[in-house]
Amino acid sequence: MTAPAPSDKSIEQQLLERLREMADAPAAAGLVDDVAHLGGLVLTHDTIAEGVHYRPEDPPESVGWKLVAVNLSDLAAKGAEPTGALLSLAIGDAPDKMLPGEWEERFLAGVAVACESYDLPLLGGDTIALPEGAPRVLGMTAIGKCADAPKRDGGQEGDVLLLVGTLGDAMAGLALLAEDEKASGTLVEAYRRPVPLLAAGRTLALHVHAMMDVSDGLLLDAARMAQVSGLAVEIDLAALPLSDAYLAARGDNREARLFAATGGDDYALLAAIHPEKLTKVTSLLPSKSMKAVVGRLVSGTGISLRDGDAPVELPERLGHEHRPQ
Amino acid sequence: MTAPAPSDKSIEQQLLERLREMADAPAAAGLVDDVAHLGGLVLTHDTIAEGVHYRPEDPPESVGWKLVAVNLSDLAAKGAEPTGALLSLAIGDAPDKMLPGEWEERFLAGVAVACESYDLPLLGGDTIALPEGAPRVLGMTAIGKCADAPKRDGGQEGDVLLLVGTLGDAMAGLALLAEDEKASGTLVEAYRRPVPLLAAGRTLALHVHAMMDVSDGLLLDAARMAQVSGLAVEIDLAALPLSDAYLAARGDNREARLFAATGGDDYALLAAIHPEKLTKVTSLLPSKSMKAVVGRLVSGTGISLRDGDAPVELPERLGHEHRPQ
Repeated sequence: MTAPAPSDKSIEQQLLERLREMADAPAAAGLVDDVAHLGGLVLTHDTIAEGVHYRPEDPPESVGWKLVAVNLSDLAAKGAEPTGALLSLAIGDAPDKMLPGEWEERFLAGVAVACESYDLPLLGGDTIALPEGAPRVLGMTAIGKCADAPKRDGGQEGDVLLLVGTLGDAMAGLALLAEDEKASGTLVEAYRRPVPLLAAGRTLALHVHAMMDVSDGLLLDAARMAQVSGLAVEIDLAALPLSDAYLAARGDNREARLFAATGGDDYALLAAIHPEKLTKVTSLLPSKSMKAVVGRLVSGTGISLRDGDAPVELPERLGHEHRPQ
Repeated sequence: MTAPAPSDKSIEQQLLERLREMADAPAAAGLVDDVAHLGGLVLTHDTIAEGVHYRPEDPPESVGWKLVAVNLSDLAAKGAEPTGALLSLAIGDAPDKMLPGEWEERFLAGVAVACESYDLPLLGGDTIALPEGAPRVLGMTAIGKCADAPKRDGGQEGDVLLLVGTLGDAMAGLALLAEDEKASGTLVEAYRRPVPLLAAGRTLALHVHAMMDVSDGLLLDAARMAQVSGLAVEIDLAALPLSDAYLAARGDNREARLFAATGGDDYALLAAIHPEKLTKVTSLLPSKSMKAVVGRLVSGTGISLRDGDAPVELPERLGHEHRPQ
């Protein structure tokens, strides 16, 4: 039930390796994390593209929200306090039934609401025009302040893996939208309007060995954390925190749990914690947070999976890397 | 010969106004500048798109160089020392005769050379895939350090406008490429590989009232500086610093000077300086820098143009805003 850590050498992977060679400054920390460190600041940049990270039919307000939220989720994983953001807005063709600029106005309204919600000052950025027919590409650089950010590679042997948030909701929502583009409800909202767990991240940061946000699927992201920490990881499907909406839509069998563990777009937090600290740490988290110990770090390499006591074969794909649809 | 300051309400302008309303934190400084300020740091983000800011046929290495250089030019205008950058790389289809990923590898090589040249550590960023057929969109956030950055809106009545660098080279190079895509030489290089004037910027920053880089054409950018400073501006075409290569290619008549004053992509520095400080400031600049007093700030609004002693009617377009070609 053990497989090597992911090493799919896609073009993206090859380019990331090239980038790692280039990013040799200490502040880049080998690009192991999603953030760079500069003075007491952490910086992250996420770009989303139409037809890749969101559906062209998604409400523009929700795309604006999502761009802010996915960037803030990277800051949450460092326990950082948001201090500012730069926006890159590439203007595209007006969709059917919209005036020129209307999509962008509505997108900016979504950005504004998210910035307001999380007290993120918009500091600047760039606005460019795109050639006709080009999919929109939207980027944000978010900057946060933190004293001593946990890294992704600090996991220690014997650490338990605490997951804060829920898994699978966003991908279940995307599946609903694929069936019916007018679908709505909790799961669709989870896909369109993820919530960055900033408060939980700030609390966790003080007590954990390693932390990251789960954006590409729990199995893939946990395997990454284990790999850079020089360890193996065991994940228990039976322990996944699943929302009521998820259970109602997808059921509670192994297939549903595998879907939740590999879906991506969760923006949950995954933290490696000394087992003796677990009780204290969970008591400090907001009481309404969904949270669960989903596995642990052990000696060795790779990832293994079980469902309660039963070993489970690893799925072919450990997670969801965003690709054009 | 006086016209109101530019107020072409394109979609981009309208969206910029919306962004200004949103960016109400002091650190954003009303988006008057191309940079944001955050505790001793300045941050800038520039995005370039295939078919808008560069030609699809341009060597990928030169596109990588250009992305770094245009961002560093914003830092130069603040007299800032580059301290790091985040890269946003959207992977596109392989052009004819290239393998998948080859364009990006070569682009990254250009980024690496520029980072090396200007001592800019690459700290992180994001790599995404684009849908088939989508033009590439490439972004960079550059971060610099500076004590007391000159703003764009600090110009004072009576200030002389010193331009450091040359004008028109890049647009003359682009015109050569439009005639013959195999064109080469100084002007083509100026278009493909602009040089950020970091050393000159650091020197000027200590002595000027206002500074900006000229990226959209001298007339348009000078009018912007005057407008935000609450003043009018006079520009003298006879005074423009033009390179030997430019003069050889375009001649030295009024048409050539108007082309140079409105072309864009110059990445020269434009500084508003007290006239009594001019001699001292120019003596401090690197002796090989091309430089000239191209005009001055006066009371009033708008921009006026002359050629030596002769008043000149303003051209229909004051500058070049990058648009899909």
